[in-house]
Amino acid sequence: MNKTIYLRSRPSGIPTLNDFEFKEENKPTVEDGELLLKSKYISVDPYLRGRMRSGESYIEPFKVNEPIESGVIAEVVSSKNPNFKEGDFVNGMLKWKQYQVSQGVGLNKVDKNSAPLTAYLGVLGLTGMTAYLGLEKIGKLKEGETLLVSGAAGAVGSIVGQIGKIKGCKVVGIAGTDEKTQLLKNELGFDDAINYKTTSDISEAIKKACPNGVDVYFDNVGGEILDAALSNINKFGRVINCGAISLYNATDTPKGPRHEGTFIKKSVLMQGFTVRDYVKEFGPAIKQLATWLQDGKIKYEETIVDGFEKTPQAFLDLFKGKNKGKMIVKI
Amino acid sequence: MNKTIYLRSRPSGIPTLNDFEFKEENKPTVEDGELLLKSKYISVDPYLRGRMRSGESYIEPFKVNEPIESGVIAEVVSSKNPNFKEGDFVNGMLKWKQYQVSQGVGLNKVDKNSAPLTAYLGVLGLTGMTAYLGLEKIGKLKEGETLLVSGAAGAVGSIVGQIGKIKGCKVVGIAGTDEKTQLLKNELGFDDAINYKTTSDISEAIKKACPNGVDVYFDNVGGEILDAALSNINKFGRVINCGAISLYNATDTPKGPRHEGTFIKKSVLMQGFTVRDYVKEFGPAIKQLATWLQDGKIKYEETIVDGFEKTPQAFLDLFKGKNKGKMIVKI
Repeated sequence: MNKTIYLRSRPSGIPTLNDFEFKEENKPTVEDGELLLKSKYISVDPYLRGRMRSGESYIEPFKVNEPIESGVIAEVVSSKNPNFKEGDFVNGMLKWKQYQVSQGVGLNKVDKNSAPLTAYLGVLGLTGMTAYLGLEKIGKLKEGETLLVSGAAGAVGSIVGQIGKIKGCKVVGIAGTDEKTQLLKNELGFDDAINYKTTSDISEAIKKACPNGVDVYFDNVGGEILDAALSNINKFGRVINCGAISLYNATDTPKGPRHEGTFIKKSVLMQGFTVRDYVKEFGPAIKQLATWLQDGKIKYEETIVDGFEKTPQAFLDLFKGKNKGKMIVKI
Repeated sequence: MNKTIYLRSRPSGIPTLNDFEFKEENKPTVEDGELLLKSKYISVDPYLRGRMRSGESYIEPFKVNEPIESGVIAEVVSSKNPNFKEGDFVNGMLKWKQYQVSQGVGLNKVDKNSAPLTAYLGVLGLTGMTAYLGLEKIGKLKEGETLLVSGAAGAVGSIVGQIGKIKGCKVVGIAGTDEKTQLLKNELGFDDAINYKTTSDISEAIKKACPNGVDVYFDNVGGEILDAALSNINKFGRVINCGAISLYNATDTPKGPRHEGTFIKKSVLMQGFTVRDYVKEFGPAIKQLATWLQDGKIKYEETIVDGFEKTPQAFLDLFKGKNKGKMIVKI
């Protein structure tokens, strides 16, 4: 039999296990031109919350009573497609199923000898490219500048900070546990880190950690931490709106202070970033990341949860900040 | 005697006439290297409100008990400076005085035969360049796009919309009286105009006027109109934060809905714009505006108030939207 995970209902506010449904179906068979895939690693990511809404987003919403999909590393277990052979490993947007059939469209082969398979879901996948391309395209970091990043111990933020150090910047991270801030400072080379959960005045804490102000703020969380970053932004500062995990589960429209005055006074640039806008640059981005990885200039953290059945819980745990680095489910 | 206008006190909330003080002083005398200027036209602008605060801004705050300054067209009435002669007209940041002495630094001669003197305070001055450079540097308008502009009947907005038409865009303006919306549609070539004071749902009105969504929003007002524009913004939309007149007199921190979600979903770019950041491009900007003016491709509106004593009231009237186009005081 073949286990699968469906969206049972659109979450209202914080998602719960009840919003997911496990179904069993027959293991599919392969027709000409197709290949049978066995899922090995499933990527769970905060942005999936957006796809669970019915409203417009940058990516099509999931349908209720259909399988959820995300980035998955799978093994080709049989193939009637000349481009793939048994034993190949592929990376693609695939369904949360133990086994599934594909026509091969949109799948990229990955080499398990160049890097561990899980790296292709993180540092060498969408989250690594998000960090790299967000900084390149919007951040335009200059040596000596101060880079602030929130969600700093997450899959994107942890790479952002390390790229900042490679570029010769002062790097300060914001995260939600002391264990994470220690990781940032002691393992990943951040100059300083702020635990926002134990800090009463986050704006003041940023001011202290960034005495020359903030030139680039890479925002993964939105909300009050964005406000605090903007209150410390420098003239010609840049803000990359990459994620807003603090708002994803909001049921009412979140409110906050208006920032028009700051934008005008400081000539601030803020831009929403979605890695899918830059598909043409994925090749060079991965190449650069792979080189840094090989040279030991970036490290990556992973939180690997074991068992297909744990996938919904692993997703829910993202919103509790239970992951360090990339959250991945091993099948 | 020489009449002058001082800042008596920093306004709290909406400025009043009491915040200004008229003083008389002796007419100054001219030393070697200096010239004596007689003010002819004074520019009053919303941004001056920012200079009346003590806090940090993009330009130094005015001091209490010192003369206010703004853009002024003056006539050289005597000169001991070889670069200027009696009868020259100059444009510069000058004090609100009938007569003043200058060393000539920062003054630009203006030619009253090429354009009316007042044009150098508006369409061929800072407000015209603000419109032009804001659109060029941040808006990056493409033919066929939809351009929305607020404060559309003001000195900046009225030029913004006309440049949008020159660039082949659909142009919609937002203003505060029917007289102004008629002006935009009937005289200045706007495709449509919205009177925000008589419209209950501004977001819905924008949606109706911009059925293809908003590609570029040139914001002169901030606040709820910015919110409404963002609710209609297209993928890859651009927002120019040029002014926030709706917030300039606020005493508490204004609040509003958070827009992080929109920025991420739509890859929106928003950037604060201050024309002073682009001093190097003033020459080509004025040249382009002068050409369009000469070719009859742009018109400009002015509201000219007569009498030096009316200067503070003319400034206050900006916040009541009493001006059409550039507000100027004739001395």
